[in-house]
Amino acid sequence: MGYNFYMPTKVVVGKGCIKSHCRLFLSLGKKALIVTGANSAKKNGSEKDVTSALETMNINYVIYDKVMANPTIACVYEGAEIVKKESVDFIISIGGGSPMDAGKAIALLAAQDISEDDLFSGLYEDKILPMAMIPTTAGTGSEVTKYSILTNDKAETKTSIATELIFPTSAFLDASYMEELPLVTTINTSVDALSHSIEGLLSVKASTISDALAVESIGMIMDCLPYLLQRLRDGEQSKIEFDIRETLLEASLIAGMVIAQTGTTAVHAMGYSLTYFMHIEHGRANGIVISEYLKLVERKLPELADKVLSALKYDSVYEFETLMDDIFGKREEISTDEIIRYSKLAMKTTNITNSKVKPLESDLIQMYKDAFKG
Amino acid sequence: MGYNFYMPTKVVVGKGCIKSHCRLFLSLGKKALIVTGANSAKKNGSEKDVTSALETMNINYVIYDKVMANPTIACVYEGAEIVKKESVDFIISIGGGSPMDAGKAIALLAAQDISEDDLFSGLYEDKILPMAMIPTTAGTGSEVTKYSILTNDKAETKTSIATELIFPTSAFLDASYMEELPLVTTINTSVDALSHSIEGLLSVKASTISDALAVESIGMIMDCLPYLLQRLRDGEQSKIEFDIRETLLEASLIAGMVIAQTGTTAVHAMGYSLTYFMHIEHGRANGIVISEYLKLVERKLPELADKVLSALKYDSVYEFETLMDDIFGKREEISTDEIIRYSKLAMKTTNITNSKVKPLESDLIQMYKDAFKG
Repeated sequence: MGYNFYMPTKVVVGKGCIKSHCRLFLSLGKKALIVTGANSAKKNGSEKDVTSALETMNINYVIYDKVMANPTIACVYEGAEIVKKESVDFIISIGGGSPMDAGKAIALLAAQDISEDDLFSGLYEDKILPMAMIPTTAGTGSEVTKYSILTNDKAETKTSIATELIFPTSAFLDASYMEELPLVTTINTSVDALSHSIEGLLSVKASTISDALAVESIGMIMDCLPYLLQRLRDGEQSKIEFDIRETLLEASLIAGMVIAQTGTTAVHAMGYSLTYFMHIEHGRANGIVISEYLKLVERKLPELADKVLSALKYDSVYEFETLMDDIFGKREEISTDEIIRYSKLAMKTTNITNSKVKPLESDLIQMYKDAFKG
Repeated sequence: MGYNFYMPTKVVVGKGCIKSHCRLFLSLGKKALIVTGANSAKKNGSEKDVTSALETMNINYVIYDKVMANPTIACVYEGAEIVKKESVDFIISIGGGSPMDAGKAIALLAAQDISEDDLFSGLYEDKILPMAMIPTTAGTGSEVTKYSILTNDKAETKTSIATELIFPTSAFLDASYMEELPLVTTINTSVDALSHSIEGLLSVKASTISDALAVESIGMIMDCLPYLLQRLRDGEQSKIEFDIRETLLEASLIAGMVIAQTGTTAVHAMGYSLTYFMHIEHGRANGIVISEYLKLVERKLPELADKVLSALKYDSVYEFETLMDDIFGKREEISTDEIIRYSKLAMKTTNITNSKVKPLESDLIQMYKDAFKG
């Protein structure tokens, strides 16, 4: 034994929860910065629900809707400047992982002066703005984690701000905002959440509690993936059923609670370069490499692979690989030079040291090669 | 769907965790009140570990070691007076449910003026002293709940202060302090924790997350109970193995996380009078009535009973009843008048409204009768 458990975010789940729990905003302050992307929060109704709730509560707000996918360091410093200029008390992030991670970094940077060089140092004062998170995809789990993952051009990868300070104060989960989410995004984000829970089992920080949550979340997502795959095969554009949306959102929340304890592992380490250099969407990037890593785990620590397979309700990694192949289809082109470069970068990440089975650089090269063979 | 999840306590688990995480005390303040009972914390080494850690950190402390089993309202007001007189910043509770629940009430009463009439009102200001909890039994889970259960002579029962304010700031779980815990206490407290997780499944507030944790905790305790029962049969006084101690402590922690979300149900409602009037230890009280309540659930909502049975890995409530009978042996004497009185008192509790299967007063009478038949 010997582990910690900490997840102080107040989570409310359910249809209409922003309206029904709007009093929670009152405890955060008198003026909010709404951090979001350019479009989706407007289209899916979440921004309107938030602004209506704020107006009901007589809370002022400013909107910063310039967060791009895989937000940059410049973006979060810009957001923090607005907070200071507008005398904002708290942050409300609406969107996928990008606005949530940006909002968390903005809350930190608005409360204390941190230079770009020290941004990922983990050495911060004990000061931060309160934050509310409203996920509008079901994958990242960022609403309940202590991570803010930013595009780090100096390190040529995505880098995490990791500190208990940035656990959001509250999170509102309403699957209604996902009803129009495209099928491919739905699948990619589901596989991101699945990867979080699988990696939770594979982490050196895994505990009884994180394992129980991981197994639950894996079961929930695996119950939905065949349905999503069938939709993909049918080429249907019809809506995904609401109870599937809710299950995926809950599973992604639980997976977030898992990685808040365990962190992620070699899978995310390998995925980051695919996103940074090749612009492969984050969930897809993880989905492409995860089976290869599980094969390595199976060779090096078979009892750990068995734990994952038992949660997946599969007898072999091959079955899981087939599912991922069916979902992700033809892979992108990748050169040997790229593979060597990404493997070197992955070796430098803390995600590798966080893995129970630590791949060598040669293992990473082989895994990338095998992942892109298909 | 539609539920909340909130459990902000920072939990550290493992042998030696007070020493290894003593810096956590620093963030709580400069002077502590150690709230504990007269003897056990001195005998099991926990008090010494705490005072050593405080001395290392240059934190002053006062010891209030007058907490009795099932602490009274007078006791917590007395503790709060000491806090004020001694200018204490934070509370450290060491012991079973009694010192922990007393410490939580003291932290509340020391920070704001609350009259005895308003003590259980739930209407408090947003002020409380930080608290650290060190459980030395594995049952109550109070180290991670928002409840402080006090003996309420006016209501002739045990009554809860229930508010998110009293979630402890931190909890230190080290099974070393349980090595000398008597077998009967070990069993009673284990069954208390088991009851928490079973009741979590039976609560109107049950959610995917609380269910996953409840099932995990039930499995862990059920893995240990046959071992404890064998010890009881052997009349052995030899030590209980450390890994059993750790498993029970973790299971009780997880069960506490469950009831922090779900509250308890009819089982606790019925148990309280048995403790208040008949001085039956709390875990035993729950263990005596729980099978009868499960039979009622089986009749009224069989799919819910199936969920519990599946977690217990049993095919019928009868099997579970046999285990409880084997563990708790001959019942106390109880009169019909007592049964009628306790049933009336139980009907007034919020635990009954919190139950998916709400017993009628006549059901309670029958359940008490059947529970004490053996």
